Amino acid sequence: MRELDRADPAGAVAAAAKRCSNWGRWGADDVLGTLNFLDDAKRREGAALVRRGASLSLAQSFDANGPQHGWRRRTNPVHTMLDTGLDAERGVQGFPHGIGGADDVIFMPLQASTQWDGLGHIFDHGMAWNGRRAGDVVTSLGDSVTGIETAAAHIAGRGVLLDVGRAFGVDGELPDGFPITAEHLDETIAAQGESARVGRGDLVCVRTGRLARARREGWGEYAGGPSPGLSFTTADWLHAAEIAGIATDTWGFEVRPNEFDEAFQPLHQVVIPHLGLFIGEMWDFDALAADCAADGVWDFFLTAAPLPVTGAVGAPVNPIAVK
Amino acid sequence: MRELDRADPAGAVAAAAKRCSNWGRWGADDVLGTLNFLDDAKRREGAALVRRGASLSLAQSFDANGPQHGWRRRTNPVHTMLDTGLDAERGVQGFPHGIGGADDVIFMPLQASTQWDGLGHIFDHGMAWNGRRAGDVVTSLGDSVTGIETAAAHIAGRGVLLDVGRAFGVDGELPDGFPITAEHLDETIAAQGESARVGRGDLVCVRTGRLARARREGWGEYAGGPSPGLSFTTADWLHAAEIAGIATDTWGFEVRPNEFDEAFQPLHQVVIPHLGLFIGEMWDFDALAADCAADGVWDFFLTAAPLPVTGAVGAPVNPIAVK
Amino acid sequence: MRELDRADPAGAVAAAAKRCSNWGRWGADDVLGTLNFLDDAKRREGAALVRRGASLSLAQSFDANGPQHGWRRRTNPVHTMLDTGLDAERGVQGFPHGIGGADDVIFMPLQASTQWDGLGHIFDHGMAWNGRRAGDVVTSLGDSVTGIETAAAHIAGRGVLLDVGRAFGVDGELPDGFPITAEHLDETIAAQGESARVGRGDLVCVRTGRLARARREGWGEYAGGPSPGLSFTTADWLHAAEIAGIATDTWGFEVRPNEFDEAFQPLHQVVIPHLGLFIGEMWDFDALAADCAADGVWDFFLTAAPLPVTGAVGAPVNPIAVK
Amino acid sequence: MRELDRADPAGAVAAAAKRCSNWGRWGADDVLGTLNFLDDAKRREGAALVRRGASLSLAQSFDANGPQHGWRRRTNPVHTMLDTGLDAERGVQGFPHGIGGADDVIFMPLQASTQWDGLGHIFDHGMAWNGRRAGDVVTSLGDSVTGIETAAAHIAGRGVLLDVGRAFGVDGELPDGFPITAEHLDETIAAQGESARVGRGDLVCVRTGRLARARREGWGEYAGGPSPGLSFTTADWLHAAEIAGIATDTWGFEVRPNEFDEAFQPLHQVVIPHLGLFIGEMWDFDALAADCAADGVWDFFLTAAPLPVTGAVGAPVNPIAVK
Repeated sequence: MRELDRADPAGAVAAAAKRCSNWGRWGADDVLGTLNFLDDAKRREGAALVRRGASLSLAQSFDANGPQHGWRRRTNPVHTMLDTGLDAERGVQGFPHGIGGADDVIFMPLQASTQWDGLGHIFDHGMAWNGRRAGDVVTSLGDSVTGIETAAAHIAGRGVLLDVGRAFGVDGELPDGFPITAEHLDETIAAQGESARVGRGDLVCVRTGRLARARREGWGEYAGGPSPGLSFTTADWLHAAEIAGIATDTWGFEVRPNEFDEAFQPLHQVVIPHLGLFIGEMWDFDALAADCAADGVWDFFLTAAPLPVTGAVGAPVNPIAVK
Repeated sequence: MRELDRADPAGAVAAAAKRCSNWGRWGADDVLGTLNFLDDAKRREGAALVRRGASLSLAQSFDANGPQHGWRRRTNPVHTMLDTGLDAERGVQGFPHGIGGADDVIFMPLQASTQWDGLGHIFDHGMAWNGRRAGDVVTSLGDSVTGIETAAAHIAGRGVLLDVGRAFGVDGELPDGFPITAEHLDETIAAQGESARVGRGDLVCVRTGRLARARREGWGEYAGGPSPGLSFTTADWLHAAEIAGIATDTWGFEVRPNEFDEAFQPLHQVVIPHLGLFIGEMWDFDALAADCAADGVWDFFLTAAPLPVTGAVGAPVNPIAVK
Repeated sequence: MRELDRADPAGAVAAAAKRCSNWGRWGADDVLGTLNFLDDAKRREGAALVRRGASLSLAQSFDANGPQHGWRRRTNPVHTMLDTGLDAERGVQGFPHGIGGADDVIFMPLQASTQWDGLGHIFDHGMAWNGRRAGDVVTSLGDSVTGIETAAAHIAGRGVLLDVGRAFGVDGELPDGFPITAEHLDETIAAQGESARVGRGDLVCVRTGRLARARREGWGEYAGGPSPGLSFTTADWLHAAEIAGIATDTWGFEVRPNEFDEAFQPLHQVVIPHLGLFIGEMWDFDALAADCAADGVWDFFLTAAPLPVTGAVGAPVNPIAVK
Repeated sequence: MRELDRADPAGAVAAAAKRCSNWGRWGADDVLGTLNFLDDAKRREGAALVRRGASLSLAQSFDANGPQHGWRRRTNPVHTMLDTGLDAERGVQGFPHGIGGADDVIFMPLQASTQWDGLGHIFDHGMAWNGRRAGDVVTSLGDSVTGIETAAAHIAGRGVLLDVGRAFGVDGELPDGFPITAEHLDETIAAQGESARVGRGDLVCVRTGRLARARREGWGEYAGGPSPGLSFTTADWLHAAEIAGIATDTWGFEVRPNEFDEAFQPLHQVVIPHLGLFIGEMWDFDALAADCAADGVWDFFLTAAPLPVTGAVGAPVNPIAVK
């Protein structure tokens, strides 16, 4: 494991970015980043994993009872009704022949609940994925280059659950501040066996147990607060593995507090703009983990197509695992 | 084909509801309706259809350039930025070590673009799916019984595209006001061959070509206006086929104008509250249709899991077909 | 002071409603309630109070840093930009001859910050102001009878500040749970002198100091939590005084916790549906109070016209006092 | 009247900006622009105009039936209910002792209906009011310098209605494309008499009749389309008059189409960033105009305090005229 100089996040980011950069790997016009690793063969491999036909949603709820508390205007979703069954019963809707309806709207930050970060979500010193200027990519009109819609059709393939919480935690839960290293990932894979192997084009699901704790104890500081998560030192592992995407059951993917004295999400700063890696956050792996532990099979067909909001830098998703 | 009395939509609705009702079929507490037909075996069958590994999104865009024009407060999605690349470049975000970010929010009617209608979306004389009072199901707090989250994990299985536009239209497009009957559906199936067979638990995709026309000519009255669509008379076919769900590339699933002198979406009034049928609207089948026509294979693995907005009576979805 | 039976809020509400009802007082079609007391003569009286020409806003801020924390989906306002100066500088807006612009949108509960309650905001046993059924007044389409727009032109007249916090508090602040009684109001008036007299058609501003404390200590439980406020027993005083409206610097107007064992805002239940009284909440009287204490003049010309959102049951307002 | 070179809007803007600039007039830190002209004396003068005590709202409605059609994501307001009278009647709200409630939220562009433009709304070649860089003023976090809240307490004073539609139109309405020049303004003042004089610190209301036509014929292209309005050539008049603000009953204040071959709102480009002038749009002067014509008095006390949305570059307002 690489040693970190806690006083120099900028230096660590720069060095990791240099080691792990994928800029130019898929041409100057690329908008897919690591999704380039997810090809038709990988989708065939994923589909072949469907043995029982059981489907599980990996999404948290989208509602006002979520973990957000307004940091940088990230609120919980507010869902309101345009029409209801009460209106229909009362006969105030003005429709003919007894038909009535209910309809609804939502206001929500696109990263309020289960989501994918788009490649326009994070910048390093004003630079976005593939070496573009951040302001050439994302303006007030949205992300005109790597908007999430460019990824919309791609994210279906082989998913692999790495239950690090089960492997290294107590009762399946890692403590806050626990940095998951490459060694933890490799040992979890080894412990789980052949179906947990991780390779090029895979969609990796890392369970920490943080959501299970929030579910039991209340949201508390789930959003933005202390959490287990990926160590900054995994940048090289993530790069070398050539995975298509990675998701966790935490708010912010990385270990929190971050592993430098003064820092904010330094691993994001490497893996999104430099690797072009797709990161999923606030996923719910608890039911899937129980299922995998029961049958000993840790891979599955995963469809996790984000809602194609034009120009979005992240988007909600209802990921479906079929085993 | 059953003859319709154009002057009596209420009578036609009542008669069809009586013939086709599934109330009680899955018990008094059921919230899944026709999704009960979609079982693990059907998902295995669907996954086995993945031959090439090609994935296609069947979603329209979610943005301000959509077809909505405010009918009953249904606007197009409004997507705005909380942070942009320009802010990051300018250094006004207050983050350390050179990290910058972009973030965004959305306001949208849940049925503004590609969506599933939930079972709480439509009522018949104040009654909702399975014989519940509409006001016992959907209040201002949302659908507390059949909210779309109850369907969230289920909708993955065998999809079948019926390109009725190709079979009966001109250049692949049916004219506005064209009622698609059971005969049209059966003949399309026959013409397309074995891979287009429709049965219990399938997710049926009916292409009319209406979206292709809107794409070419502009939205015009796409939302709410004249359109080809399912004939009211297909209620019995939809019931007998025991399909899990059906989606079209039109705003409102049914033919518009409706087939009665004064009417509003009478087929909805039968199939949602009485059959418990899941209806998808505003899907985009054009790329899929071209692909199917090219390889002659009309079925595929379809994952179309709606965003699980708690209590929603409909929800956006990015359906993914894998062939 | 009337004694309250803490165990019987329903009985107390019923009795007060009976004593204080204004139903029918201004005809069966009335939508203005106590605003009927605010006539042209009162506006002339108010305008004549302008001596120095100083104007003060009595509004709190409307932004994400407000007191709301999501109770019943009441969030703080979320204000986002459609265009910014950074976009204009970068030249990405597409406008000719060097013009650039910024534009913005807001999502907010109408009672998120400084506001007037409309007459459709509160019901007593399903009955609204003037004896109408609640569901005949407010449906999912809004308040079709007493929507706030009906009051939009009326609320300008003589304002009177009663600084009860100054009269009975410590350092100008009443403690949480302090019930302001009719005696407190009368003694404050007496202490403040002739300019503080309250009568028919006046707009009464009651300062408790609760906002000053929140400003100093942080919002904490300002929204919905413990607070000084009007005692339930003031219903008769409010009725007899024939005031046009009353506002406080607290979240909920009434003392919190309420003065019954199990209760929620019982004074609202009397004064909105039965008196037809306009209640303002979350106003900011601190600058005004300092000004009034300095010059010894407690009345002023007050314009507090709510934003005329059609069908709203409450609306934001920027009240302006001119002295 | 100054001649315009229709081919050179940039040159005309530059020249007018040079002639009319108020940069530095009130110091380098100024955020009020022409509101500096509105002082206490002017407010006393305004209050003294209240003779009858009649109050009139000058606001249009805020609802889904407004003129917006989505240009640059400017939609009409969407007002939805969190709770309704139907819910209260049904007893599903969970409140004790028979109390029930209705509550609501809104989503709206801040300039969707009657509004003031803030000083951060328009830029000239990337420069904002008083010589600041646009991007130093308005970022994705809002206008941190001249946000509308800085004006919130100030806008109460002497209002003057200039009914140019009545003076120069047919049936009180100017045709689309009619440029209102300084001569039209002066002649309207002369025709209306002494009470219509305009001077330093006044709030000038210019009625064109455009709203009356929209009210009669439907919104059509009211938002953004052809309209009577101020001529570009009035920049000098607006500067010399030292008014505090000016409002019209049109969408965009200026004549549309603009008076250059290719242009977009060139008068805005001069008067907002260079004069620091407050512009009101989409006000409703029809009832006021009828009242003024009837009594021959064209000035009044005007309170038009914008909703203090922190950092807003424009804000909704319910202006109240008291005569």
